[in-house]
Amino acid sequence: MYLLAGDPAELAETVAAVRDADVAEALNALPPQAAARVLAALPFDQAVQVLDEPELEQEEEIFACLDDRTAGALIEAMSADQRADLFRELPPQDRARLIRTLEPQTAEALEVLLKYPRHSAGGIMTTELTQVPEGWTVEQALRHVAEVGRARETVYAIYVHREDGRLVNVVSLRELMVADRHALVSRVGDLRRPVTVAPLTDREEVARVISKYNLLAVPVVDERGVPVGIVTVDDVIDAIVAEQTEDVQKFGGMEALDEPYTQIGFAKMIRKRAGWLCALFVSEMLTATAMQHFQGELERATLLAMFIPLVMSSGGNSGSQATSLIIRSLALREIRLRDWWRVALRELPTGITLGAILGVIGVVRILLWQRLGLFDYGPHHALVALTIGCALVGIVGFGSLAGSMLPFLLKRLGFDPASASAPFVATLVDVTGLVIYFSVAYVILRGTLL
Amino acid sequence: MYLLAGDPAELAETVAAVRDADVAEALNALPPQAAARVLAALPFDQAVQVLDEPELEQEEEIFACLDDRTAGALIEAMSADQRADLFRELPPQDRARLIRTLEPQTAEALEVLLKYPRHSAGGIMTTELTQVPEGWTVEQALRHVAEVGRARETVYAIYVHREDGRLVNVVSLRELMVADRHALVSRVGDLRRPVTVAPLTDREEVARVISKYNLLAVPVVDERGVPVGIVTVDDVIDAIVAEQTEDVQKFGGMEALDEPYTQIGFAKMIRKRAGWLCALFVSEMLTATAMQHFQGELERATLLAMFIPLVMSSGGNSGSQATSLIIRSLALREIRLRDWWRVALRELPTGITLGAILGVIGVVRILLWQRLGLFDYGPHHALVALTIGCALVGIVGFGSLAGSMLPFLLKRLGFDPASASAPFVATLVDVTGLVIYFSVAYVILRGTLL
Repeated sequence: MYLLAGDPAELAETVAAVRDADVAEALNALPPQAAARVLAALPFDQAVQVLDEPELEQEEEIFACLDDRTAGALIEAMSADQRADLFRELPPQDRARLIRTLEPQTAEALEVLLKYPRHSAGGIMTTELTQVPEGWTVEQALRHVAEVGRARETVYAIYVHREDGRLVNVVSLRELMVADRHALVSRVGDLRRPVTVAPLTDREEVARVISKYNLLAVPVVDERGVPVGIVTVDDVIDAIVAEQTEDVQKFGGMEALDEPYTQIGFAKMIRKRAGWLCALFVSEMLTATAMQHFQGELERATLLAMFIPLVMSSGGNSGSQATSLIIRSLALREIRLRDWWRVALRELPTGITLGAILGVIGVVRILLWQRLGLFDYGPHHALVALTIGCALVGIVGFGSLAGSMLPFLLKRLGFDPASASAPFVATLVDVTGLVIYFSVAYVILRGTLL
Repeated sequence: MYLLAGDPAELAETVAAVRDADVAEALNALPPQAAARVLAALPFDQAVQVLDEPELEQEEEIFACLDDRTAGALIEAMSADQRADLFRELPPQDRARLIRTLEPQTAEALEVLLKYPRHSAGGIMTTELTQVPEGWTVEQALRHVAEVGRARETVYAIYVHREDGRLVNVVSLRELMVADRHALVSRVGDLRRPVTVAPLTDREEVARVISKYNLLAVPVVDERGVPVGIVTVDDVIDAIVAEQTEDVQKFGGMEALDEPYTQIGFAKMIRKRAGWLCALFVSEMLTATAMQHFQGELERATLLAMFIPLVMSSGGNSGSQATSLIIRSLALREIRLRDWWRVALRELPTGITLGAILGVIGVVRILLWQRLGLFDYGPHHALVALTIGCALVGIVGFGSLAGSMLPFLLKRLGFDPASASAPFVATLVDVTGLVIYFSVAYVILRGTLL
């Protein structure tokens, strides 16, 4: 709030010594009007760089507070990918107003970028790439880089194209610098077919490609093989972090928020959470139905009811472990859809072993409480303990199996395996767990308690 | 398995046209002996590059199969960070054997890197950085880059140092290329204090710094301000992906595996999963204790037992949502520890609203089943429905609150907030949920069912 006290010019001077990302964060803490005033008072180049920071949160509100001339000049100078991001966020009336302030070719390039889905390579790429024709020498290319480098951050990969625009190869600036100055750029560096992605490639896949081949940028080429843009490594980091947030939120049993927790409105938050919560609630109603079937058993032995939460939750917990393991392994491509049976053959013994460990703890607990006189489980306490132990082996084993198979099933059906949330698995296992529990009880306790 | 048929030289020829990361993946599919044979038959430079790929999984097994001369030469040529990674994985006897094959100064540099914890900046940095003294001109620096660029990938940031070794500023290769050739390097580019990290900075923090300031590399400086290495953006992506895997596994209610799912042994898998599972099981035993207290109520109204899984799981589900939201918001620094009360003031009404939605569904379900004659909930079915509805408001409200506060509590106590797993929250909410449920039932049903 200190920043609000002085006059804009003075603020701007203070701010000039600070890094752009830090300025962006400081602006996030201000109301949009104040942030717009500070931004307008900054040196033009720095204002543009602050706007290019993905950290800046209320970009669209800030632009709503700027006059058309300032806004137009700033937008014109922004990098193409950040400009497209801004327009994606703008409300329709601001979008129409601001697009009129742009140069025709900027507006045209913007329209192209806006056509791509947000989470695709086209949606996160920038159109500012450094291209040279294949007939150029290293010397010419280096001179070109020195010229365009003033304006562009993206000069570390130089894309060599044919006459018809198609990509021939990619030379890194490092390779260019160590090469013979008179060699042709098309004969320098890595001459294997360049790694490329298509405009509609999902950003997760783009991230995987960049990370796997340790690239600083990957060219996005159209169906003819002509580069239309590049996705740089810093865009990819932002994409990876955003995907990670989505995955954690989905695994927590809700829709991804797509907005920071601190920014989202109450009604939207309820919508994002209520859907899954209701679906899980309705599915979980099957437990009530299952319990109705066992009403007779429950009335004869209320003792059995006491252990229901304990045995059921253990199944859900082991299922949640298995699901988290498989979701990540699938995401990292350590395992593929066809490996499902390998995983099943692994999870079943794992689950049974884990169930046996819990079973032993459960049996010891019941016998110990009985022996110490802490609670009276009645004359058949040994059989009750055996029921709990055996039920745990079955339920935890089933939980691990079901939890590990769910992501495969979702993937097979064309859904995101990351939708297999911990609550989803727990619900799935709860209903079956009840049936296993009462079946085991029926076999062991028939003739005594039941 | 086709690869195994031919002779190594022929294989190597085929493999030379393929990208290093793809070769690494192909080697992952081979038994270590065969992988070692293929590697030894590759051109030396390509073998080194394949070994530098973080994708290569069984590096330590491959080195166990190589003779000392080949192994020593390869390790000598590897990049410093990958070399340190390899030695971290090697069994002690191989480590001692292979370290003797190295040049004294390589061994010394290796020892330094091995001292840093795996997840710190020092543990993921490489010591190959491009440094120039502050008295040099742009021309001299460019000539230096062209010389060292042949061997080093990391020439895009040039570190300008004082006579005493301390870092003065960082110039990007782009800035160097567009600058006046006769200017001093210390007067070029960004003259603000360079962004640096310490050797013991956590890799998550390093990733945040690189991502926030859009750097290609961040220098790691010791307490005197002398650079000891750099962490590059591709190392950071690998670190982010690894952290993500850890976080998902922890959120699933287990210890992080630290190994691919397909690689880990059965006993180790059980160890990683049994700990949390047992801890949760023992805590969940409190539900049995709580149920013992309500034994009288249960015997009078077994009807109540039927809805226990339903109402309890809803609390756990809403808690799991809240936890996943807060874990990510804390990780992304959207909220800080001191914001806990803001979150509490937000989650409580959210949870109560969500509980009310579920409550309405629950009440409708009971009344509908009764009306349609699908199940007879007895003469007091309206009161039973009211109990379920009110209990859901309380339990889901409490679940959201508890789920959102748990990560704060863990962070306050010095633990990783990401340890607040879905099963952990569910267990926490289960016990309290039971108490809320029976208390609501006692108030509403006293004099009728209870």
